[in-house]
Formats: sequence, structure tokens, C-alpha cells
Amino acid sequence: MTDQHFDVVPVGSVESPLADLSQAPNQGDAGAPPAWLVFESRFADAVRDLHVGDRVIVVTWLHRARRDVLRTYPGDDPSGPVLGVFSLRAPDRPNPIGLHRVRILTVDGLRILVDALEVLNGTPILDVKPVLDPKAER
Amino acid sequence: MTDQHFDVVPVGSVESPLADLSQAPNQGDAGAPPAWLVFESRFADAVRDLHVGDRVIVVTWLHRARRDVLRTYPGDDPSGPVLGVFSLRAPDRPNPIGLHRVRILTVDGLRILVDALEVLNGTPILDVKPVLDPKAER
Repeated sequence: MTDQHFDVVPVGSVESPLADLSQAPNQGDAGAPPAWLVFESRFADAVRDLHVGDRVIVVTWLHRARRDVLRTYPGDDPSGPVLGVFSLRAPDRPNPIGLHRVRILTVDGLRILVDALEVLNGTPILDVKPVLDPKAER
Repeated sequence: MTDQHFDVVPVGSVESPLADLSQAPNQGDAGAPPAWLVFESRFADAVRDLHVGDRVIVVTWLHRARRDVLRTYPGDDPSGPVLGVFSLRAPDRPNPIGLHRVRILTVDGLRILVDALEVLNGTPILDVKPVLDPKAER
């Protein structure tokens, strides 16, 4: 099992004003800007039932993250306790998958604007899923 | 970008009494049984701050899913409307990543029992993340 692995394929990418890591907040509610989800045309059939107002979870591949980090500081605060990454939302982790609960503001074909996304411009998108419990924000 | 892809590596796998797809409920609150998350020893440092009572999101790779499905029926109900998979939680989708909000019941080293998990025995685990808002169930 140690050598087992799977391929993930981007279904699109994020267009965001966040150009480098120093600008990126740790979570979407910490001042992240709206961002466009730009899907590849071959996934149009998967996208087409997304509507303005929908709350969805965007699943991203945090392509700038380190994958060899198993313990780190919460929120990049070196004065905090070091914790295992499965107890943290830090991007550095064995599989740098990001989960982002957002609301859809605009739908323009393969381009979908969401209200707040804390990832860098160019981040690959792996999946979009509906939020099951509308009361649950994240 | 069309040819870009990334490797995901299992950090462990699920031990569950759910042996085949006919037994698996669609969501964890639809009668899913407790299950063990069994981590590989090389990820022990990432696991070790998980505690009984923690609410976490388990990220899985739904290895039995089809990846060429872009539209399907909600909840495997053929009488329902066909929708794009980004508006559904169906396992069949371009990147069959599962998200499962669970509570930890037991911690025994690299083996962690969670309260309800709607995946088959042997499903690979990609990541574990803490729930940010404890009021949010899923």
C-alpha cells in the first residue's frame, strides 16, 4: 500500500487578486477577496447546475504547499504549540487539499464568482460540492 | 493545463463493516456505522494531536467511483432530475474525493474510531482536518 497513489486532475483554476503567499489570509473569513472559479470547457456538464446564491465547498489543490510537513504551528504563529497537521488547517500537509466554503455571487458560463476565497491566483480546482446543511458555514 | 495532474498518496485506510456498495448509505447520517481510520506509521506525527471528542473532516479517495460521470441523479434515484455532479454529493465525479464530518470516539495510536462513516471497507484516506465551526455539522 505504501507505493499506492492516485492522480487528481484540475477541473479549472482560481482567478484571484491574491498574487503571493504574504497576501493570503489563513481562512476565508479573515479578509479573503471574491474570486473567480474558471472551469475547463470539458467539465461544462458538471458545472451547469450551479446557481447564484448556492453555498458550495470548493476543493482545491494547494500547489505551493510543502508535502513533507507533519507537524507545524497553528496559523503560522511560531509562539503557538506545534501540532500534527491533521489537527490544523495549515496548507502544508501530505496531500495539500484545500476546503473552502463559499457562496456563489455570479454565474457566467464556465466562470463562477464566489464571495471569499483564501487561495492564490492560479490555484487548481479539483471539485465543487454542495453544502448539505445550509446553517453550517464551514 | 489539460495535461496537468497531481499525485495523491493515501495516509491510511478505512476499516468498516460496509463491504459492498449496496450496503453503503448516501450520507453519514443515513445509518452509517462507526469505522476505524487506520493510519500508516510514517504519518504518526501528523496523527498524534487527534483526541477523543474532536470533530474532524475525513477526506477520502472514493476508489470505486467512476470518473467519467459529469451528470447523474441525486441519491441514486432515477426518478429525480439529472444534475451536474458539482451540484451533487454523488461519488461519481472527475476527482472522487469524499468529505465526511465525524466525531472521534476512540484513539489507539495509529487507529482512530469515528462515529459514522459512509464509505466502503478499504477506502483510502487522504487527509484529516479539524472542523472550524463546532456548530456546523457538515
